[in-house]
Amino acid sequence: MFESARLPHVMTREEFAAAEARLRERLLDAQFEVAEQKRAAIMVLINGSDGAGKGEVVNRLYDWLDDHLVETLSYGEPTDEERARPGAWRYWRDMPAKGRIGLVLGSWHHRLLRNRALRRLDKNAYDNALEEMIRSEEMLRLEGVHLIKIWLQMDDAEAQKRLAKLREFDGALRRPAVIEWAEFDAPKARARLIDAALEMIEKTSTGGAPWAVVPASDPRYRDAAVGDLLLQTLQQAAAGAEPSHRTRAIAAPASALPRPSLVSALDLSRKHDPDAYAQELRALQRRLTEATTAKGFRDSGLVLVFEGNDAAGKGGTIRRVREALDPRRFRVHGVAAPTDEERARPYLWRFWRNVPRRGDVAIFDRSWYGRVLVERVEGFAAPEDWMRAYQEINDFERQLGETGYLVVKFWLAISQEEQLRRFQDREEKPFKRYKLTPDDWRNREKWSLYEAAMTEMIDRTSSRLAPWTMVEANDKKYARLKVLRTIVERLEA
Amino acid sequence: MFESARLPHVMTREEFAAAEARLRERLLDAQFEVAEQKRAAIMVLINGSDGAGKGEVVNRLYDWLDDHLVETLSYGEPTDEERARPGAWRYWRDMPAKGRIGLVLGSWHHRLLRNRALRRLDKNAYDNALEEMIRSEEMLRLEGVHLIKIWLQMDDAEAQKRLAKLREFDGALRRPAVIEWAEFDAPKARARLIDAALEMIEKTSTGGAPWAVVPASDPRYRDAAVGDLLLQTLQQAAAGAEPSHRTRAIAAPASALPRPSLVSALDLSRKHDPDAYAQELRALQRRLTEATTAKGFRDSGLVLVFEGNDAAGKGGTIRRVREALDPRRFRVHGVAAPTDEERARPYLWRFWRNVPRRGDVAIFDRSWYGRVLVERVEGFAAPEDWMRAYQEINDFERQLGETGYLVVKFWLAISQEEQLRRFQDREEKPFKRYKLTPDDWRNREKWSLYEAAMTEMIDRTSSRLAPWTMVEANDKKYARLKVLRTIVERLEA
Repeated sequence: MFESARLPHVMTREEFAAAEARLRERLLDAQFEVAEQKRAAIMVLINGSDGAGKGEVVNRLYDWLDDHLVETLSYGEPTDEERARPGAWRYWRDMPAKGRIGLVLGSWHHRLLRNRALRRLDKNAYDNALEEMIRSEEMLRLEGVHLIKIWLQMDDAEAQKRLAKLREFDGALRRPAVIEWAEFDAPKARARLIDAALEMIEKTSTGGAPWAVVPASDPRYRDAAVGDLLLQTLQQAAAGAEPSHRTRAIAAPASALPRPSLVSALDLSRKHDPDAYAQELRALQRRLTEATTAKGFRDSGLVLVFEGNDAAGKGGTIRRVREALDPRRFRVHGVAAPTDEERARPYLWRFWRNVPRRGDVAIFDRSWYGRVLVERVEGFAAPEDWMRAYQEINDFERQLGETGYLVVKFWLAISQEEQLRRFQDREEKPFKRYKLTPDDWRNREKWSLYEAAMTEMIDRTSSRLAPWTMVEANDKKYARLKVLRTIVERLEA
Repeated sequence: MFESARLPHVMTREEFAAAEARLRERLLDAQFEVAEQKRAAIMVLINGSDGAGKGEVVNRLYDWLDDHLVETLSYGEPTDEERARPGAWRYWRDMPAKGRIGLVLGSWHHRLLRNRALRRLDKNAYDNALEEMIRSEEMLRLEGVHLIKIWLQMDDAEAQKRLAKLREFDGALRRPAVIEWAEFDAPKARARLIDAALEMIEKTSTGGAPWAVVPASDPRYRDAAVGDLLLQTLQQAAAGAEPSHRTRAIAAPASALPRPSLVSALDLSRKHDPDAYAQELRALQRRLTEATTAKGFRDSGLVLVFEGNDAAGKGGTIRRVREALDPRRFRVHGVAAPTDEERARPYLWRFWRNVPRRGDVAIFDRSWYGRVLVERVEGFAAPEDWMRAYQEINDFERQLGETGYLVVKFWLAISQEEQLRRFQDREEKPFKRYKLTPDDWRNREKWSLYEAAMTEMIDRTSSRLAPWTMVEANDKKYARLKVLRTIVERLEA
């Protein structure tokens, strides 16, 4: 989840100055509008590991906003008054009035996360508590409270370094640094905390109150991104827009700031040594055959998903996988336009009917992800429909994973230049010409839209049970071996 | 939950003939309309204890509908094909196409209920499975599948009798009776099953797919009620209406058939022996004082809710309770129109801020139920807002209950004649005149609307942790003693 937040997000001093000037003016305008209307309250929940700069973000927002209409709501250990009442009472007590903005440090997620990371809650109890939280947040939303749930994402080592600095600095100012997670001083404990946080973000990102994971390594980018999210919410609230009521699905809290695509982090020029290729291919195929004919595999099952750019080499890769499988026990499903039968039923029906028997392999050459890729980009699906698809897909794959299936998903990525070369090659060779359609040229023009949709897809659906693997595919041999190796290693694990 | 379904619901032969004639014609019209549009599929899930007549209902619906456009989907023990795939696969496989109606016996609720009643699932695992089910059902709804979730409610002894008869009868026809719950032959096992079912109905009644609990003792009423629910859904689907998307809250699947009010089951003429009153009052008050000053009470807390007809005697009853309490440790909250402060925040805020400290008592003279009573009847709240209030209130009271508070709720009921007598009395006596407002007379004109709202309120919010107590209040002394006794007994338990 949120792979893309781990990419470097930086802003130069000049970029920040420009963004800040723009934000200050617009934030104030929108804030006064909301204050005058008294129709909506805004709560900005600022969460993240210590050292990611939660306090700094709050200070920055105070700089940008009219501070008479803002209040900080900060929760640490409960007081006696609070302890004498149900846990939710203190958050209710401090609820900001309509027209006002509350900046929340230590929100209701905190106690839950802590108990989960300290292993005081088992999975089921945690899930229940999260569902209860979802219901409360939905109720707030319907009552006119807009929630902005922010997780400041920072590499652990970096956070520790910044924290050490912050302590020094704050010591000089005689102001205590905001330390929320004092109990998680050991690296192992922090890892458990991050795990619990990811689980929470995955499960409680709803259409009405999605999480925004904000890369926090660069304070300038971090503050501008948070300011931008707040601005969007204020503007929506001022326009009287209620958040979508149609769906509990994951929506995209997209910042207007430039976001790097996941492909930008790949080294597409990776190549495999052509001489060693054949031998390694055979070895991997042999391991795949062994793993899928082993006795234990009969209670399991394998679902392979291939997505990627047009002409990225899905077909050839699938062939190398297929060769290693017992032909009675696999099936390749190409995804074309839905039939009448399929159109008459819910979207996922055509994939459910192709769920393999246990012990079999289903290979999907394009898949249920069509809804959040082509259907989204081409406008074949309404936003509320593709937005809820993220959660439905996660649920579908979780059902497969929890009943013993292995779900392995690949995105085959090539560069725009490589794609052009392959298209031209297809045009020239008569036996390849059938592979190229006018659609392919049209999709190519929307390259950046597809790339943004792909990045969000992977951010939202790379779950712990069914993670995505990005495959550098400019070199076909490299791609094939990486795919086979990934499958074999997941099967053998 | 669903107290009112336990009242006798009967139809004479003549009433049924009239209802049937009406239903047949309209069902066919609506069915053909839906079939032509091919926009919505309908699934009628028929659940209930064995003997309640699930099979009979299906047969009856076939009589009334065009049977080419209907299919029965019946699930028992999974077949080998089904066992080889995830549990949800068989339901997906059989999904009726748009334009068609599926009558489902043994729906996805069945396996869950069974595992819960056999204690194979603990509370948390059950809750999680129910939430997953809610998400799936919501997805179906958004994909154009209308679910009608029916629970046929029948007294256990009666169901057993009917079942014995049915076995005989069906034996003669050489047709097996539909026995879904063969493992629950012992009365104790059946009680656990009913418990698990109630829990499920309470937790999975959402705005988009609410349960309808249909009284099934009288086959005529039962069939007419189910037919009526199907008709409403078909007509909505034909009109292109999507079920409310705004809310996951409990909606009211109200049948157009006459429904007895919960008050009709009360004997309002109950009286207490006036000579013994004073003595018993003192004795109960003494027990109340003891219970609320006991050491254990400091970790608990008491929340009392008084609702009822105007002039039902809430004030006098509250006085008798109050007299027994330590004045430093209780507070009476009258509920008037919300203040500006309150209006600027979510509805439940003004009640949350009055949640007592542990060890204290809060008495609410009218309460958060205003939203589903006066605000509903007078139109102060939009339907989607009062509909979601049922679930929000259940969540609120559950949070109180789970953190150790005792929530005790009373409905004080008087007859229309008694109310008139008391109004006239108030008009005549100058010192009582302030108690009577023009509103009281206006509300009186909407007596039956208030009674229906009250019945639904009690059906939807009488939970296991916070049940309602109906109080026959024509005789004030009887009412006061019943209230005190209920509080004392719950405290002592």
